[in-house]
Amino acid sequence: MTPEKPFRPLSESELAVLRQIAGEDHVLVAPADLQPFSHDWTEDFVFPPAAVARPRTVSEVSRILAFCNERRIPVTPQGGRTGLSGGALPLLGGLALCLDRMNSILEIDEKNAVATVEPGVVTQTLHEAVEALGLSYPPDPASRGSCTIGGNLAENAGGPHAAKYGVTGKWVMGLEAVLASGDVIVTGGKTRKDVAGYDLTSLLVGSEGTLAVVTKAWLRLIPKPAARAVLVAPFATLEESMAAVVEVYRRGLVPAACEFVDRPATEVSSKRKGVTLPFPEAEARLLLEFDGGGDEEVERDVTRAGEAALDCGALDVVVAADERRMRELWEIRRGIGEAVRDLGHSSELDVAVPRSELAALVRGIREIASEAGFSSVAFGHAADGNIHVHVYGPGSGEAGEELFRQTARKIYALAASLGGTVTGEHGVGITSRDCLSFCRNPAAIAAMRAVKDALDPRGILNPGKLFPPLSEHGEPR
Amino acid sequence: MTPEKPFRPLSESELAVLRQIAGEDHVLVAPADLQPFSHDWTEDFVFPPAAVARPRTVSEVSRILAFCNERRIPVTPQGGRTGLSGGALPLLGGLALCLDRMNSILEIDEKNAVATVEPGVVTQTLHEAVEALGLSYPPDPASRGSCTIGGNLAENAGGPHAAKYGVTGKWVMGLEAVLASGDVIVTGGKTRKDVAGYDLTSLLVGSEGTLAVVTKAWLRLIPKPAARAVLVAPFATLEESMAAVVEVYRRGLVPAACEFVDRPATEVSSKRKGVTLPFPEAEARLLLEFDGGGDEEVERDVTRAGEAALDCGALDVVVAADERRMRELWEIRRGIGEAVRDLGHSSELDVAVPRSELAALVRGIREIASEAGFSSVAFGHAADGNIHVHVYGPGSGEAGEELFRQTARKIYALAASLGGTVTGEHGVGITSRDCLSFCRNPAAIAAMRAVKDALDPRGILNPGKLFPPLSEHGEPR
Repeated sequence: MTPEKPFRPLSESELAVLRQIAGEDHVLVAPADLQPFSHDWTEDFVFPPAAVARPRTVSEVSRILAFCNERRIPVTPQGGRTGLSGGALPLLGGLALCLDRMNSILEIDEKNAVATVEPGVVTQTLHEAVEALGLSYPPDPASRGSCTIGGNLAENAGGPHAAKYGVTGKWVMGLEAVLASGDVIVTGGKTRKDVAGYDLTSLLVGSEGTLAVVTKAWLRLIPKPAARAVLVAPFATLEESMAAVVEVYRRGLVPAACEFVDRPATEVSSKRKGVTLPFPEAEARLLLEFDGGGDEEVERDVTRAGEAALDCGALDVVVAADERRMRELWEIRRGIGEAVRDLGHSSELDVAVPRSELAALVRGIREIASEAGFSSVAFGHAADGNIHVHVYGPGSGEAGEELFRQTARKIYALAASLGGTVTGEHGVGITSRDCLSFCRNPAAIAAMRAVKDALDPRGILNPGKLFPPLSEHGEPR
Repeated sequence: MTPEKPFRPLSESELAVLRQIAGEDHVLVAPADLQPFSHDWTEDFVFPPAAVARPRTVSEVSRILAFCNERRIPVTPQGGRTGLSGGALPLLGGLALCLDRMNSILEIDEKNAVATVEPGVVTQTLHEAVEALGLSYPPDPASRGSCTIGGNLAENAGGPHAAKYGVTGKWVMGLEAVLASGDVIVTGGKTRKDVAGYDLTSLLVGSEGTLAVVTKAWLRLIPKPAARAVLVAPFATLEESMAAVVEVYRRGLVPAACEFVDRPATEVSSKRKGVTLPFPEAEARLLLEFDGGGDEEVERDVTRAGEAALDCGALDVVVAADERRMRELWEIRRGIGEAVRDLGHSSELDVAVPRSELAALVRGIREIASEAGFSSVAFGHAADGNIHVHVYGPGSGEAGEELFRQTARKIYALAASLGGTVTGEHGVGITSRDCLSFCRNPAAIAAMRAVKDALDPRGILNPGKLFPPLSEHGEPR
């Protein structure tokens, strides 16, 4: 991938201004220092910024943006750089604005069940802090040990428990954010119900750093569920497993998580873990987690879910309610993210469809991959119809790359044709921007561009992301 | 309230075009025909449109908007006209675009638990349709027997069960909507997790008809909870009741509804119903509803909530789990909306604060009202910190009106000073637009204006709503 028109290097006088704002030690320019800020977890992409600034306060962020806006310097906000769509990559160079020093949990207000945090807080750090008080912040992206709240907000990150609790955006009560102009907006706060004016909070969440830089967030918390139980069920066919997902909901059950792993994904993960699972021939496995206020109801729900699974053809049902066994049951699913790296070159697609179309999606993906001579693994969040796909196999050099791209494009098109989307939780970034039009009509994309132009008229914030590139004539490609 | 610069009457040729699009019978101009479209449930406001169009299809809506945009004719979208902030009032005249003929439930997809509806569907009609299938659409504004989904979307309506389930916006998976230009955008659909591009869905929800006209919505459903129970507890003091709300959550309980009624509100409602409640001297009453997958857990939760209430000083706890008794317990709370009409002139303010500040809010409101020689009643959604206030008493003519307005302004300012908002669920409309700046900073309001100008550059959609009027010099007043 070649960036469109890289930005010029920053001048010494520009760097001096940035140093004056953020402090001498917090503006990096040496190539070795820039290296960590040049990549995230997306394939093997490397896009070095011209400089990195690591501000500590909203005032510093505001002054940096106002200055960059005046000079039209591209600014790419960064958090934990664990994204899988390239959202934090300084595609055109310019300034990487890393929020890692703004990493304080400012307050956990137990009376109102609200956490006030800076964007650089690592998600798991927040989880641990609120859980120590008997509270819960449900969004749990797979990268939660390394990703930051700011990144979760930018990408509107999901995770397994989005099945019951929804993605990050559902938990945001308000944001303090800096616009490209340097103006600081506050979009809400600790009040749970607030419909005063446009929902700028939701507009910024998932805007991938293209509209504003978040400097503070008010996050809603809930009481930590008192009880949990996990069920794992293998199925001979994809179709039976997906019918079981629909059936679980039809019986009035609401799993906290409802994960799907196909046979190839099970194989790579169990191989890496060095374990042998029963029913290795199973084409699909479901993992369902239930939570609630007491053991009885969770036991009841997990039992009823097990019955639903068996009625739909499950080969077996294994249930666990103690922490160690639950962790073991999660192990194969949680291990996939690392295991797929053993497959060699591959990129993770993040498609989603209506729940009822999942079997058709997975089957279609296999056909598309196989036609190109590739293999595929698929796993993810069945309740949300959100599947992560790795396509891998022979093919190197430019021709191989192009075949990978074409295959990905076909998979995005398939998801869209099933009423789905090119990204369920990773964001568009650079990986699916060329395919945004598969799932959003031209008028909707034009409306997004109008909003972008209204809030960032010079286009300095995270340029090259989310939108399809324009042609030389200013038309969408 | 005098409208700023009413629009000219529509010309015969303009009406001919509208008739050609919507059909002869569906464009109204006779004063008697316009009367119902001139008011909603907000105070005694009357603002007649120059004409009413009642389109049946998205194509008709698109052509009407494109035409009005070309002629710069103001367009005020209307649904059930049950709003309490004046959102559906044709403030400047122009065209009232009533969506009442687009009232089909297009599909209830049980497999995906998604309802696809037109905007004119009455909310209760949708409730009944999905409940017949064992499903639930939780948002339940008090006006649900008359209000429409389109209006709920426009105002991001709440209701008692928002305590557990959130306001309307949390249930919207996608919208089809027509921009001022006539362009039709589609922002999502049946896929539960979809982060492709800006969240235009959430931007439109709560935009009060100022950004687009919704013509179709995909709404998320959940299994209907199998069991319910209701608890009512009177308290000697406001402070004790509010401490009980905080304590219920601190003990890990999540009520489906958590309502508050103060003594004056209890009095007007029980007087109208002709009933005498025990503990008439109680300064506050709480009603808590719990729901869940089975009787045991609901009984457990309601018992634990009762203990929390008693520990915080409740004078009594009454629990019911059969339909008839639950309805009786709800009766006083549900009756307030009608009963307050007996108070004579009054307007309903819809303020919200962080949950912990509710007692301070209600006490402060009483002081403000009393200083002006008024009385007040307060009731509403305690868990969300969202209180409806009626201020009433002597005072008529212009001086009285002005005193009412000043009192309302002080109440809005109080809510904002406690970290709250000028509207929790009714929308800004015209009733609190002058006070939007109390709870949103100038940069945030400027960002909202920029979005408005980007999507509706000629300002035809619901002019005069949500934003504070500009002065003659184009500055905010």
